[in-house]
Amino acid sequence: MPAAPLVVHVGLIGPGKVGSALLTQLRLAAPRLLRDCRLDLRLRAVSDSRHMWLDCDDEALNGRTHGAQTWRPAELDEFAAYVAGDGGAPAVLADCSASDLVADRYAGWLAAGIHVVTPNKRAVSGPLDRWLRIGAAAGASGARLHYEGTVGAGLPVVHTLRDLLDTGDELTGVEGMLSGTLAWLFNRYDGTLPFSALVRQAHALGYTEPDPRDDLSGVDVARKLVILAREAGIALSLEDVAIRGLVPAELSACDRETFMENLEALDAPMAALLAEARLAGGVLRHVARLDGRRASVGVEVVEPDHAFAHARLTDNVVRFATRRYCDNALVVQGPGAGPEVTAAAVFADLLRVAGAMGVKRCAC
Amino acid sequence: MPAAPLVVHVGLIGPGKVGSALLTQLRLAAPRLLRDCRLDLRLRAVSDSRHMWLDCDDEALNGRTHGAQTWRPAELDEFAAYVAGDGGAPAVLADCSASDLVADRYAGWLAAGIHVVTPNKRAVSGPLDRWLRIGAAAGASGARLHYEGTVGAGLPVVHTLRDLLDTGDELTGVEGMLSGTLAWLFNRYDGTLPFSALVRQAHALGYTEPDPRDDLSGVDVARKLVILAREAGIALSLEDVAIRGLVPAELSACDRETFMENLEALDAPMAALLAEARLAGGVLRHVARLDGRRASVGVEVVEPDHAFAHARLTDNVVRFATRRYCDNALVVQGPGAGPEVTAAAVFADLLRVAGAMGVKRCAC
Ligand SMILES: NC(=O)c1ccc[n+]([C@@H]2O[C@H](COP(=O)([O-])OP(=O)(O)OC[C@H]3O[C@@H](n4cnc5c(N)ncnc54)[C@H](OP(=O)(O)O)[C@@H]3O)[C@@H](O)[C@H]2O)c1
Ligand SMILES: NC(=O)c1ccc[n+]([C@@H]2O[C@H](COP(=O)([O-])OP(=O)(O)OC[C@H]3O[C@@H](n4cnc5c(N)ncnc54)[C@H](OP(=O)(O)O)[C@@H]3O)[C@@H](O)[C@H]2O)c1
Repeated sequence: MPAAPLVVHVGLIGPGKVGSALLTQLRLAAPRLLRDCRLDLRLRAVSDSRHMWLDCDDEALNGRTHGAQTWRPAELDEFAAYVAGDGGAPAVLADCSASDLVADRYAGWLAAGIHVVTPNKRAVSGPLDRWLRIGAAAGASGARLHYEGTVGAGLPVVHTLRDLLDTGDELTGVEGMLSGTLAWLFNRYDGTLPFSALVRQAHALGYTEPDPRDDLSGVDVARKLVILAREAGIALSLEDVAIRGLVPAELSACDRETFMENLEALDAPMAALLAEARLAGGVLRHVARLDGRRASVGVEVVEPDHAFAHARLTDNVVRFATRRYCDNALVVQGPGAGPEVTAAAVFADLLRVAGAMGVKRCAC
Repeated sequence: MPAAPLVVHVGLIGPGKVGSALLTQLRLAAPRLLRDCRLDLRLRAVSDSRHMWLDCDDEALNGRTHGAQTWRPAELDEFAAYVAGDGGAPAVLADCSASDLVADRYAGWLAAGIHVVTPNKRAVSGPLDRWLRIGAAAGASGARLHYEGTVGAGLPVVHTLRDLLDTGDELTGVEGMLSGTLAWLFNRYDGTLPFSALVRQAHALGYTEPDPRDDLSGVDVARKLVILAREAGIALSLEDVAIRGLVPAELSACDRETFMENLEALDAPMAALLAEARLAGGVLRHVARLDGRRASVGVEVVEPDHAFAHARLTDNVVRFATRRYCDNALVVQGPGAGPEVTAAAVFADLLRVAGAMGVKRCAC
């Protein structure tokens, strides 16, 4: 006789690009998970920065309102309490925002036994004291925090590192192309078009953040490096990363329009770098490095037979060098952005939480 | 107050190259796992094909015999029963043999609630009816079977595919270099030396199986393809894989010495393939393909800008094309053989079994 399904309460914070994709994936996968894995995921509530919908699984109410659910003003702790309910079922919050305000609540939620899964880099790469408080809260209650989606989107990066370390391997270095946007730019930048023209193209195609400086600054990549370092037990912070950003100092503080109007200021320094790369017989790539505690992010000249020279489109690449993977690194590569693959990482993290409660996922 | 550690009984079958590495890793990791994860792994017994040692954690006995444990004739079911003990603690058998006899026991063990972790390809790629029986047994009891080490050794391949599928992605194809030995041979084969000379070198370096035909036949690679197909729910068997082997028919049945003496028979056909590749401007690689239900294994001409053309040494490469990863594949690459990395895959599988009982492994 099959065991009763495990009911898990789910709350979604941030129904933006990733969050909406996750809602779709959850809805489509639900029947299969219930049948094959005896897992009953119940979406209880959704919140954006201003509204929250607390009646997602209230069939009667949803029926009465013809699915047009009523909302009330967002209040994160009230939201979490509603998702947790009377504590009869485990609760998981999926934080698909990019908000520090939400990250500020993790410690409290985890302490209360509420699990968190997220592609939001703020908590894991943010202030070290907050991160340590979060770890202590999770440690005390046993609640989980998973964040595979923070690095490489859906690529298996964080838990691959976890497996290496937990089985006794030692990380000696990480070398990565951790920004899809910057990868795309440098894959295309061959001097035919000025760098600024490519940035404008990427912006128009929606490959960059609304403000391209958020990509060009290198801070987002540095955050990912901090996440990998902390995963390996290194107490690194964003301030410790040597970031060689691509935004000239005089354009770093102006408003977005002014920046976009003055994009050509990027061209001369970049053309000089390209000339340097050509002279050395290499190509330019945006590379993140972790070597012991030393972390750096910036444009580098890479040899033409280096794996980074052959990445395509918006591919991310992560190379783990370890005691065991010393001659040749363990490499994970592929599209490192996009709502669907990022949502899948959050979903897989959610399944890992359920897995820790005995839900079985193997093929056999 | 921290919870009491979870005690897990472990039995090791096959203390060969991988099995011995696993024993070392388990011993070294034990104190850390106990402290950080509250996981108490107890090695209860070890068996090779003829002996079994049933007193690994019997301190009194080990003390009396100064660690020189006594053995008795191997008997797999007695062994499993000893590892399981009175059932008070979950039991995991790590099958590090390459034996079909051991695989024959999986269904019985799983039915009895004993978990199995293994790099042994026999069960997962063997007769479909046995595989289905194994699945049914695991399904009925809830016991786990994990086999990450069967494909790509320590690389995250099988559970990466699992995550993709469980979150609702669909596999459209797999393209892989799944043999470290064949990768090494074709990375080096440029016509300077005849192919047979490279095979002799690889044999002398211990890169091939004792009988190199076990690599050259392509059957081992075909097994890995079957494993990935079955993971994706495709009921494929070894007979369904179109294998273009490298061993001429007239040398497939002779003894090993005769084969090694006649290795030069490989040279002319291989030189012809190389000439063909050159004409097409490409390189030769040993490639495994899964496309829907169609599976094939053999030497192919690969374009010089294909990722396979840039793999090095004994690197394996697995490219998953899915509905979500359609423009660019999700790629995992790195050394796909070696006792240490293979043992680490088995170890990580063991930690996954413990994880399903609530053992916590995240960094925070
Ligand atoms: N998109 C990708 O390819 C990708 C890849 C890897 C990681 N990520 C990460 O995934 C997360 C989501 O990215 P996205 O592209 O989906 O962003 P997005 O489209 O901008 O969505 C963000 C969502 O978060 C909500 N939000 C913001 N502050 C909130 C608050 N204080 N409380 C509740 N909700 C709040 C927003 O609601 P409002 O509409 O009310 O502002 C919006 O629904 C980010 O952390 C991002 O870094 C994204
Ligand atoms: N080595 C690698 O790099 C690698 C990589 C991926 C996967 N694998 C897989 O890992 C497994 C182990 O490989 P290995 O290289 O460690 O092989 P190995 O050195 O030949 O060791 C095999 C072990 O299995 C034992 N064994 C054989 N039949 C048995 C039986 N019926 N009952 C109990 N024990 C039995 C052998 O004992 P005896 O000494 O008594 O025969 C030996 O201890 C194989 O399935 C292999 O395909 C290996």
